[in-house]
Amino acid sequence: MGRPQHGGNLIWAANIAGCPTSSLLDFSASINPYGISPKVLNAITEGIAQLKHYPSPDYANLRACLGKYHRLSPDYILPGNGSAELLTWAARDLAQREATYLVTPAFGDYDRALAAFKANIVRLESTLPLKDLASILGNHPTSERGLLLNNPHNPTGKLWDKPGIVDYLDQFALVVVDEAFMDFLPEAQQQSLIDWIADYPNLIILRSLTKFYSLPGLRIGYAIAHPDRLQRWQKYRDPWSVNSLAVVAAIAAVQDQEFQNFTWNWLTPARDNLTRGLGNIPELEPLPSAANFLLVKSSVSVTRLQLQLLKKYQILIRDCLSFAELKDNYFRVAVRTPEENNYLLTSLEDVIKDVRD
Amino acid sequence: MGRPQHGGNLIWAANIAGCPTSSLLDFSASINPYGISPKVLNAITEGIAQLKHYPSPDYANLRACLGKYHRLSPDYILPGNGSAELLTWAARDLAQREATYLVTPAFGDYDRALAAFKANIVRLESTLPLKDLASILGNHPTSERGLLLNNPHNPTGKLWDKPGIVDYLDQFALVVVDEAFMDFLPEAQQQSLIDWIADYPNLIILRSLTKFYSLPGLRIGYAIAHPDRLQRWQKYRDPWSVNSLAVVAAIAAVQDQEFQNFTWNWLTPARDNLTRGLGNIPELEPLPSAANFLLVKSSVSVTRLQLQLLKKYQILIRDCLSFAELKDNYFRVAVRTPEENNYLLTSLEDVIKDVRD
Repeated sequence: MGRPQHGGNLIWAANIAGCPTSSLLDFSASINPYGISPKVLNAITEGIAQLKHYPSPDYANLRACLGKYHRLSPDYILPGNGSAELLTWAARDLAQREATYLVTPAFGDYDRALAAFKANIVRLESTLPLKDLASILGNHPTSERGLLLNNPHNPTGKLWDKPGIVDYLDQFALVVVDEAFMDFLPEAQQQSLIDWIADYPNLIILRSLTKFYSLPGLRIGYAIAHPDRLQRWQKYRDPWSVNSLAVVAAIAAVQDQEFQNFTWNWLTPARDNLTRGLGNIPELEPLPSAANFLLVKSSVSVTRLQLQLLKKYQILIRDCLSFAELKDNYFRVAVRTPEENNYLLTSLEDVIKDVRD
Repeated sequence: MGRPQHGGNLIWAANIAGCPTSSLLDFSASINPYGISPKVLNAITEGIAQLKHYPSPDYANLRACLGKYHRLSPDYILPGNGSAELLTWAARDLAQREATYLVTPAFGDYDRALAAFKANIVRLESTLPLKDLASILGNHPTSERGLLLNNPHNPTGKLWDKPGIVDYLDQFALVVVDEAFMDFLPEAQQQSLIDWIADYPNLIILRSLTKFYSLPGLRIGYAIAHPDRLQRWQKYRDPWSVNSLAVVAAIAAVQDQEFQNFTWNWLTPARDNLTRGLGNIPELEPLPSAANFLLVKSSVSVTRLQLQLLKKYQILIRDCLSFAELKDNYFRVAVRTPEENNYLLTSLEDVIKDVRD
């Protein structure tokens, strides 16, 4: 079996580790390690009886709930089969523009989605850690062009300040900001552009509910954009794009303040400790991150490290071979529980000796 | 609240009936009335624990299972977020052709999907009951053109014989056959084109698992087509289009021969009895159907019948206002359990008196 193109292919990893997928310690997918909250689990279990009905094509309940959560009219919200589905339609709109800027390294599915509609992609490669937006964009022309940004940025974890992006809303024909990991920041620290949505019909925000709420298998995200644009997208796709269990899970999730507070209280110290521990290993250099994952520069071969961690400790880290700019010199790890993070650190210290020698 | 554009909007109907949606007797959605089979329910419940992982982007287990079921290489199979998602990509391919023929009346989402990619639609209207394909297609040019067919046809229930379609595979540039209701026919009676798939790279078959297995809320269908075409489609859409519960449900469903036999044994006599009963009402004329629904011509106003059935009996039938060719003169009903079908018949006999007067 070949090395998988995307992260999260546990079958490939379990084969190498010689264990069932359930025994792997998965640092490769950037998912909340505390699993599904009891309230969400309950909503899903109760929702099974409703699977014999079609979802309501207007998803009115879910849109009302998300509207309340973001203090927005539900007309500005379109739920999707994961934010990945909505990226496809955002890419279709970007492809109408003369060109789309992509800050690289970038999430691999951006290339797929833009290529699907033959968009003209202009890659703006930044040295790492990523620079600020003004330095990256430089004097490149903006009018008639689109910008596709990820904030916080994946795979680096870099957070761009709101003011640094808002300036460009007046310049670009279309700005798409993928905020899939924004909810991992406590509310006061978030740099979301949601407050600007009513003023800028050329702004699209993509949000995910599967990372924070540990539901990547269920597929649920949403777009925030001008109602005219979202009504157009609804004709691009079929009427029942979001499954009924994703609907009830999402409604329970955004109202679950206990789970939200728990997650925010866990993340900051856990990430600080993991960053410090990785930094103490001479061969490794973690980049500063505002998200629930860390990009780590390595002076030893990452593919060798990855294989050793799998074979010896059943730990899966995310290699960065799919990012042309990163190659074998970087890996990404999710921040997990303090105990799991410590286990990763001691395992890394051990295998790095083998790889170094 | 306005009359819904699509079938299955239970909230609208419950409002009129003055009852909760769960108290409605829903004849509008063409879903197996026996609900979700115990084996499928069990697979879904056990699958919840896996929602914290991404689905495997190649969906190898599901494709292998469907391949075994159809005696086909898994390369010829692509699972989708309902067959409705795959219709969108089939329409994108059809839109590359000079024109696409649509036999009308046709399922409303065909227009949506074709329009989404600016396909040139040529509507071939047939009188009802639908004629055979040769009569409908007549001498229209075929090369460089596409054909989008529904077999059995929705909303009429007409079944076209295999040989009558196969002839056209050599003539049309692209043939898409939506077989969403084909599995309701016992295997020996099915007229699927699956056996021709390896010989015709210009053939696409769409299949659903949500109607027969009563899972419309879960979203699961699949396309059968040449591997080159399916690999192209995988780049049109994101890598995780099918949720993990749909995967385990589908695998359990196609192996559940007990549920399949039960459903086949129920349908034929139940449909025959319902057809006979409707035919005994002077104002109504049911069309012959091979599927799990009946299209019924009515000499009294269907919208008035529909409202009376809702208010007096909490029964929802499918009006045909969304089919331009049918208007207020036809309704569609699912075949349900023998008891429910009898209740529909006596209720119809009662309200038809009010509407007639």
